[in-house]
Amino acid sequence: MDISKKIIEMELAALERWNNGDPSGFLEICAVDVVYFDTATEKRIDGLDELTAYYEKLRGMIYVDKDDILNPKVQAVEDMAVLTFNLISYGKEKLTKWNCTEVYRKESNQDWKIISTHWSLTKPA
Amino acid sequence: MDISKKIIEMELAALERWNNGDPSGFLEICAVDVVYFDTATEKRIDGLDELTAYYEKLRGMIYVDKDDILNPKVQAVEDMAVLTFNLISYGKEKLTKWNCTEVYRKESNQDWKIISTHWSLTKPA
Repeated sequence: MDISKKIIEMELAALERWNNGDPSGFLEICAVDVVYFDTATEKRIDGLDELTAYYEKLRGMIYVDKDDILNPKVQAVEDMAVLTFNLISYGKEKLTKWNCTEVYRKESNQDWKIISTHWSLTKPA
Repeated sequence: MDISKKIIEMELAALERWNNGDPSGFLEICAVDVVYFDTATEKRIDGLDELTAYYEKLRGMIYVDKDDILNPKVQAVEDMAVLTFNLISYGKEKLTKWNCTEVYRKESNQDWKIISTHWSLTKPA
């Protein structure tokens, strides 16, 4: 299914920039109504403005040497698709294991945008 | 939007049973291709058979006195909807704060089924 390939390529391209300190790869493909959870959020982040403010504080702060994306899967209908994967990210001193769920929606101009992101640690202590 | 109300009601009904030790409320509304992450999964669980085996081990083990669902939000297209919320669950000894993402899909018989679940701790240690 072509949409799976497209969604995974979008995610990998955004991750590549993320791993080099640049959150704009994700911000550029997020919809205005994006919602967001990660391990540092006190509550769900609602909307691109709030996510932008959150991510700008991280700009230049995060460097990941290498990611292994494990078993990415896309479940899609005409206008929405959910991408899930495990990820191992290798930083300077340690590796971190992640669970990730990304929901993409086809917008009226036919672009696909992220509307929901959920990052969590695999088996946190 | 009527679909938001329907999805939230489905989730609340399944949670009510979950909080009384019964995982079948969720299993009955999961699609065959459901994928699943929580804080104990080593890797993504793929498919209803695997999720059923996982949940059956928890049957009768989990009792939650009360849940507070915070700010549930549904983002929907015709055949898919993503529900996100924070949740505070009050158990016997402590409260636990959760992030949750649920993706529902409208099946060919018009029933809505969960195709993706992601539970994580809010700000894990």
